[in-house]
Amino acid sequence: MEKEHIAIVGAGLVGSMQACYMAQRGYQVSVFERRGDIRKAEIAAGKSINLALSDRGWKALRGINMEEAIREIAIPMKGRMIHALDGELSFQPYSKDGKCIYSVSRGGLNQLLLEKADEYEGVSLHFNKQCKDIDLKTNSIRFKDVVSGEVITQKFDRIFGTDGAYSAVRLRMQKVDRFDFSQEYLSHGYKELEIPALPNGEHRMDLNSLHIWPRGEFMLIALPNMDGSYTVTLFFPFEGPTSFESIKTEQDVVDFFERTFPDAVPHMPNLVEDYFANPTSSLVMIKCDPWHYEDKVCLMGDSAHGIVPFYGQGMNAGFEDCTYFEALMVEHNSDWTKVLEAYSKIRKPAGDAILELAVRNYIEMRDLTADPHFVLQKKIEKRFAKKYPEKWMPLYEQVTFSHIPYEEALERGDIQNRIMQRVMDRPDIEENWDSESVEQAIIAEVQALKLPSPLSLQD
Amino acid sequence: MEKEHIAIVGAGLVGSMQACYMAQRGYQVSVFERRGDIRKAEIAAGKSINLALSDRGWKALRGINMEEAIREIAIPMKGRMIHALDGELSFQPYSKDGKCIYSVSRGGLNQLLLEKADEYEGVSLHFNKQCKDIDLKTNSIRFKDVVSGEVITQKFDRIFGTDGAYSAVRLRMQKVDRFDFSQEYLSHGYKELEIPALPNGEHRMDLNSLHIWPRGEFMLIALPNMDGSYTVTLFFPFEGPTSFESIKTEQDVVDFFERTFPDAVPHMPNLVEDYFANPTSSLVMIKCDPWHYEDKVCLMGDSAHGIVPFYGQGMNAGFEDCTYFEALMVEHNSDWTKVLEAYSKIRKPAGDAILELAVRNYIEMRDLTADPHFVLQKKIEKRFAKKYPEKWMPLYEQVTFSHIPYEEALERGDIQNRIMQRVMDRPDIEENWDSESVEQAIIAEVQALKLPSPLSLQD
Repeated sequence: MEKEHIAIVGAGLVGSMQACYMAQRGYQVSVFERRGDIRKAEIAAGKSINLALSDRGWKALRGINMEEAIREIAIPMKGRMIHALDGELSFQPYSKDGKCIYSVSRGGLNQLLLEKADEYEGVSLHFNKQCKDIDLKTNSIRFKDVVSGEVITQKFDRIFGTDGAYSAVRLRMQKVDRFDFSQEYLSHGYKELEIPALPNGEHRMDLNSLHIWPRGEFMLIALPNMDGSYTVTLFFPFEGPTSFESIKTEQDVVDFFERTFPDAVPHMPNLVEDYFANPTSSLVMIKCDPWHYEDKVCLMGDSAHGIVPFYGQGMNAGFEDCTYFEALMVEHNSDWTKVLEAYSKIRKPAGDAILELAVRNYIEMRDLTADPHFVLQKKIEKRFAKKYPEKWMPLYEQVTFSHIPYEEALERGDIQNRIMQRVMDRPDIEENWDSESVEQAIIAEVQALKLPSPLSLQD
Repeated sequence: MEKEHIAIVGAGLVGSMQACYMAQRGYQVSVFERRGDIRKAEIAAGKSINLALSDRGWKALRGINMEEAIREIAIPMKGRMIHALDGELSFQPYSKDGKCIYSVSRGGLNQLLLEKADEYEGVSLHFNKQCKDIDLKTNSIRFKDVVSGEVITQKFDRIFGTDGAYSAVRLRMQKVDRFDFSQEYLSHGYKELEIPALPNGEHRMDLNSLHIWPRGEFMLIALPNMDGSYTVTLFFPFEGPTSFESIKTEQDVVDFFERTFPDAVPHMPNLVEDYFANPTSSLVMIKCDPWHYEDKVCLMGDSAHGIVPFYGQGMNAGFEDCTYFEALMVEHNSDWTKVLEAYSKIRKPAGDAILELAVRNYIEMRDLTADPHFVLQKKIEKRFAKKYPEKWMPLYEQVTFSHIPYEEALERGDIQNRIMQRVMDRPDIEENWDSESVEQAIIAEVQALKLPSPLSLQD
C-alpha cells in the first residue's frame, strides 16, 4: 500500500513539529510555507521574537526528541521581577519549588524544528508557497509560488492547517455549513522594543526573570535573549488619553517612558528610534468549531485557537495539540475519522479555556502584580500548596507546570479563587496570613467542596 | 463635478432598496447581483419564501414611495394562532389595538423593489456578476460573470455590501486589521414545507394569522401567501432523539407529523414528497464590527447582522439600516466619513440587540406560547399597556410596532420582564390578574424605577 501523503500548510512552530510527528509515523509529509526558508532568514525586527516555553511545550518536544537541543537555547526564568514606579524591585517566583519557564527565540526554535523535520526521509519542505484555496471535495490545495508566480494544484490524503491566526486553511473551512468562527481584537495592541546587551555582552538586568513594569491599564515586559539583550514589549491601548494614538512625537515617547518606566529608560538607548521604526501590532483572538473537516483537514495551533500572549501559552497550547493528536493516533489506531472527531471534541474546550485564561492574565500582569493584597493571596496559596500538594495547586502552576487540561485548570482555578476571596476577607489576614487558623479554614473549604486532588487531574 | 459612482453588491431586498435611496440622492448607482434577474426567475422552492413585514420595514418603504405598491401584495396577520396537540386553537393578538404584521413573498417584494430601482435614470443593474475580491486601496471590485466566465475589475467611489449573511464584501473586510467578526450556527435548522390552497383557491386555515404549533424543543409555523397557500416551516434540532437526523424514512415523517402536528397533516397532501425534496437549511448568526471601511465601504442588512428569523425582523432591520443611513446623510450633509462612522456606531448595537431578541423569541414561540402562565402574563401586560400607554409598551410592540432603537427595546423589555416576574409571583395572580391591586403594583414599580415613557423612546 502506498504511504498516505500529508500536507502541512504553514512551517511555523506547530507545523514544523507536526511534520516531525507525522514523519515519525512513516507518512509522506509535504510542508508548505508562504514565506522563505526561515533557516536562511534574518529574523524580522518588531515581530514577537521570544516566547515562554513551559511544561506542555517541553512534553511535546520530548516526543520528537528535541528537548535537549532546545534546552541549549532556552533561558530559565524563575519568576516575575516587578519594577515599581520608584524603581524598587520585587521578585515573585512562579512556583513554590523553583520551577521555571524558559525564554526562547521564536526564530531559533523554528529553525531547529525545521532542521529536525528536514532530517526525516519522508519530509519535503516547500517555501514561498502560498495556499490560495482548498477544494474540500478532492482534498487538493492550490498554491501560488510567491516568487515565480506559478500556480500549482496538488492532491493530498490529509491536510493540516498550521498557518496561524490568519489561516488560509481555516478561511476555506469558514465556508463549510455549520462551521462556527470568530475573530475578535483587543482594544490594546503592542510594540516591541529592545534593551540591548552591555558592551561586554552581559545582560543589563537580572537574567533569570521575566521583567514586568505593571502600570494598571497597561504594562511593559522584558524577556531575556541569549545574546545579552532583552526583547521588550509595550502592551498599550490603541486609543484613549494614554495610548498609541496619544503618543505622537519623539518628545512624547521620552516623556511617557521617563514618567512611567523611569528605571527602564537608561537601559534603552534606542528607545525613540525603535518606537517609531517598529510597528504597532494588534492582538487577535480566534475561535472556531469544529477544528476538523471530515477525515481530511485538521487545524492546529493559532489557526484553531489564536490567543493573546499574556499567559505565555500560545506556543505551548499549539505544541500540546501535537501531543494530543499523537496520543489519539495511538488510541484509535490511526483511524483518521475517529482521531479527527476526538481531536476537535477534546481540544476545542481546551482552546477556549486557555484563551479565557490568557485574557484574564493581562489584568493580573498589568495591574494585580502591583497590588499588595493580591501578592499576599498568592503567597498564602503558595505556602498552602507546598504543605498540601494533594489539596492545592495554584492556577498558574496548573497551567504552566502541569498537564491538567486547560479547561479543568480554569474551572479549578475559579473554585480556588472563590475560596481565597473568603480567606482574604478575614480582617486579620495581613497579620495572620501564615497562621494555623488560615490553613485550617482553607482545608475546611476544600473538604466541604469534596475537591479532588489536583494531582489526580493530570491528564 | 462628476456624479459619485456607487456600487451596490447584492440585489436582494436591502440592496434594491438602498439603490433607490442612493438614486434619489442623485448618485450614479450600479447594482451587481451574483444570481440572474429575479424578475425573470421562478422563485426557488425550499428557500425562505415569505417574510413578516412590520413598522420599521414600512417606514423604509415609505421613504422610496413603495408603501402602497407593497400593501397590495401583503397579507395582514393580526396575531399568533396557536395549534395545541389536541387541535384546539387559541388566538394571541400581536397588539392591544389590532396592529398587524404582514406576510409578503420575498421574491415578489424583491421584484417590485428591483423594478423601482430600475426606473431611476442613474441606476444600472448587472446580473450574474459575482464579487470575487475588492481592492480596498483603490476601491475597485473584481467581478466574475458566472455565465460567460469573463472577469472585470471596476473602480467606484463607494461600495455597499448588501450581499447577505455570506457576504463577499465582508469576507474582504475580515482581512482588515482590527475587524471583529463572528459566524455562529444554531444547533437547530429548518425545512420549508407547504399547505397548498384549496382547489377553489381559498386558504385552508385562518388567513390573518401566523400559525404556530409550539412543541417545546421545536415548532412548526405557517404564513399565508396570496395564492391561497401557506409556507410552512419546521424548526427542528439537527441532531438528537427527535431531530432531522432521527427522521430517515417516509414512514418516520408520517409518524412524526401525525403524532406531533395532527391537525396540520390533513392540510399537507405533499408532506412526504416536500420533506425529502426540500433542503434542510442551517441558521447562522453573523456579527461584525465596524460595519464600514474608512469612507468607502459599508455593510447593510444580513451582511452586517445576520440574525435568526424568530422575531420576523431580519428584513425589517435591514430596511431600517437604509432609513438610518438616509437620515445620517441628511444630518451630516453627505459627508461620507462622518456618515459611515456614525452609521457603524449607531447601528451596531441595534444589530446585536435584534439578534439577541430573535434568539430569545425562538424559545418564546416554540415553548412559551403554549404556557398558560406566560399567556396570562402577556394578557396582563396588554391590558396595562392599553390603559397606560405612556407607562408601558410590551416588548413585542416596541420591536414590531415602534421605532424605538432595538437596543433600547431590549433593555426596556428586560426591565419590564423583571417587574412582571414579581407580579406573576403573586399567589392570587390567576384570580386577580385584572384587579386594581395588580395594576397599582405595576404602577408602583414603574414609578420607583423612574422609567421614562416608552413613547419618549421613539427615535
